[in-house]
Amino acid sequence: MNRQKEGTPLASVGEFGLIERLARAWQSAAAGSPDDSRGGGLGCLTSAIASPRLRWGIGDDAAVIDGLAGKSLLVTTDMLVEGVHFLWSPERRRLLGRKALTVNISDIAAMGGIPAWAFLSIGVPAGAAVEDVEEVYAGMGEVAARYGVVLAGGDTVRSDKWVLNVTLLGLAVKGPIGRGGGAPGDLILVTGSVGDSAAGLHLLLSAGREKAGTGMAAVSEADRKLLLSRHLDPTPRVAEAMALVEHGGVTAMMDVSDGVSSEVHHLCRNSVCGARIDVAALPIHPATRRLAEATGQDLLAWALTGGEDYELIFTAPPEQVPGLIAQVRQDAGTDVTVIGRLTEQAEGIMAVYPPETDRNVVPLAAKGYNHFR
Amino acid sequence: MNRQKEGTPLASVGEFGLIERLARAWQSAAAGSPDDSRGGGLGCLTSAIASPRLRWGIGDDAAVIDGLAGKSLLVTTDMLVEGVHFLWSPERRRLLGRKALTVNISDIAAMGGIPAWAFLSIGVPAGAAVEDVEEVYAGMGEVAARYGVVLAGGDTVRSDKWVLNVTLLGLAVKGPIGRGGGAPGDLILVTGSVGDSAAGLHLLLSAGREKAGTGMAAVSEADRKLLLSRHLDPTPRVAEAMALVEHGGVTAMMDVSDGVSSEVHHLCRNSVCGARIDVAALPIHPATRRLAEATGQDLLAWALTGGEDYELIFTAPPEQVPGLIAQVRQDAGTDVTVIGRLTEQAEGIMAVYPPETDRNVVPLAAKGYNHFR
Repeated sequence: MNRQKEGTPLASVGEFGLIERLARAWQSAAAGSPDDSRGGGLGCLTSAIASPRLRWGIGDDAAVIDGLAGKSLLVTTDMLVEGVHFLWSPERRRLLGRKALTVNISDIAAMGGIPAWAFLSIGVPAGAAVEDVEEVYAGMGEVAARYGVVLAGGDTVRSDKWVLNVTLLGLAVKGPIGRGGGAPGDLILVTGSVGDSAAGLHLLLSAGREKAGTGMAAVSEADRKLLLSRHLDPTPRVAEAMALVEHGGVTAMMDVSDGVSSEVHHLCRNSVCGARIDVAALPIHPATRRLAEATGQDLLAWALTGGEDYELIFTAPPEQVPGLIAQVRQDAGTDVTVIGRLTEQAEGIMAVYPPETDRNVVPLAAKGYNHFR
Repeated sequence: MNRQKEGTPLASVGEFGLIERLARAWQSAAAGSPDDSRGGGLGCLTSAIASPRLRWGIGDDAAVIDGLAGKSLLVTTDMLVEGVHFLWSPERRRLLGRKALTVNISDIAAMGGIPAWAFLSIGVPAGAAVEDVEEVYAGMGEVAARYGVVLAGGDTVRSDKWVLNVTLLGLAVKGPIGRGGGAPGDLILVTGSVGDSAAGLHLLLSAGREKAGTGMAAVSEADRKLLLSRHLDPTPRVAEAMALVEHGGVTAMMDVSDGVSSEVHHLCRNSVCGARIDVAALPIHPATRRLAEATGQDLLAWALTGGEDYELIFTAPPEQVPGLIAQVRQDAGTDVTVIGRLTEQAEGIMAVYPPETDRNVVPLAAKGYNHFR
């Protein structure tokens, strides 16, 4: 990606000229999207399931979608604000677009659904170049193509800072899977590994501060690349969600956006349960473990409250668990780990630290990211 | 509405506490919403048409909507940014919420649909009080109750300036009405009156500048109130759209958000037509005419390019027009006016000024509001 030294002023293309250029940027990125080996090609999913179709997209007062007979429609929306959720960087325009769509796809996957139609509202600073906006769209287009998502509408406005709001519509493949279906005795599982995104963020925030004694010098280039990618360009777990739905037996599910601790509290509140989380069982990637050791950072804090992992956390009765784990491994090539179990609500939401003694069972703090703290 | 001198800091209630308070603010405003005489009670519309229902709303990864068999789903989204689309004012928090939903309801009505489910993403400055956000929600809740709209999800984030993004889902009552169905010979009609919103904006921008010679002193309190209301608290033309759909025969429709001139250009582009607009026929409210005369402002500029009228502009074959006008008058109590007709594309998009001579037929400038100029 080239640093954009000079660009086309927004005023020179006009609002409708801009919209046309952006639709093109999305389309050409979507057409040229490299096949990603993680999870296999998923663009076919929508066409396989979907008699629904977008009759009219961009260019009218509203988009029109037909043929939703018998399908549950899923709708999610997320707002990302410059300076709060991301720092604007010319080198990372495309990654910004990718992540803005990814976090919404992750929400749809966490309902047991496939993503279908995206609506992007974007606030663009007056001083931005057309190429800046095009790159954001191109990033979204790349991810969209991979998961069969169509840009169906949106709004382009001026603002002081960059603001992206994505509303994503999807379809539940079977029944939608909410947060409230868990029961005492169900095991709690998580896909992939947790804490990598927080580790990547730590690397990002430490950039340019690689002084002696910070331990940064000891981090390998491969670890650095992997962890930055996990933070800046996460993979939504669509293939994993489809494997879980295909197998059946998942009672509650959500994605890990705020952090495992916070999500366990959500699952417990909606399912009217308590929980015990086995801290030693949390799946930690070796690269994340190495970074925490090299830099003296709190590995468990990354894993429990770091957030932005976009893994799936879900519950299922014990007898379903071996089959679910096998199905996800087979269909998506991803490991799934049992990290605890749901209990009666009166037992509270507890973290169990090794060795398991009475004094090592403590309340699991729910601290995720509070936007207003 | 009281000016909020001191309020509850956002940080003191936490993110989830805030979401709960906002849902309550919406609900209690919706429950206490006064019946508005314009157009009659419309909340019944959704339940009358709709087997579709919101299975799960706020509180999961995505909202779930079932039962869309045979219905066309309509989706529209709009982003409003402080300092660009509105100035933050403690006195007008509730009006801001009302208008943010209204402009989206207007888009759904302009497709011949009824609004159903709203998703609100809101960016809130860190220094704002909980009561500020509650008032915005309460305003939306008032409008939502009147039109049968349910708050189905959203996102609450921190930002430097206030940002509101509403995504609204609706259902087409019969076939959706787009912008592309007009044909040469169709008449062009508009509901209500145009230019009032621009007149109201002029009053707003002139506030505190009522010097001698500006003509402001001559404006009656009744005119002032009416025009400000037309700008700050427009009425979406849902009852009018339903009357048009009920009657049938409308070939193309949209709402007047950017201005009549701009919308005529859209209709012509999508319908592959030209147009002749009879400038003398534009429906101008007497209050708007009086304000333009008292202040020396350009009445036609207000009517043609002022925008934000949220009237419906539509086309229909001449033989359908008397029936359509009668139906809207009967069902919604609103006047509809013929303002021109579609022509062959080669004839261009023309404005006809009185008296109709060759030199009084000139190209209709498309200048709406360009966000990046």
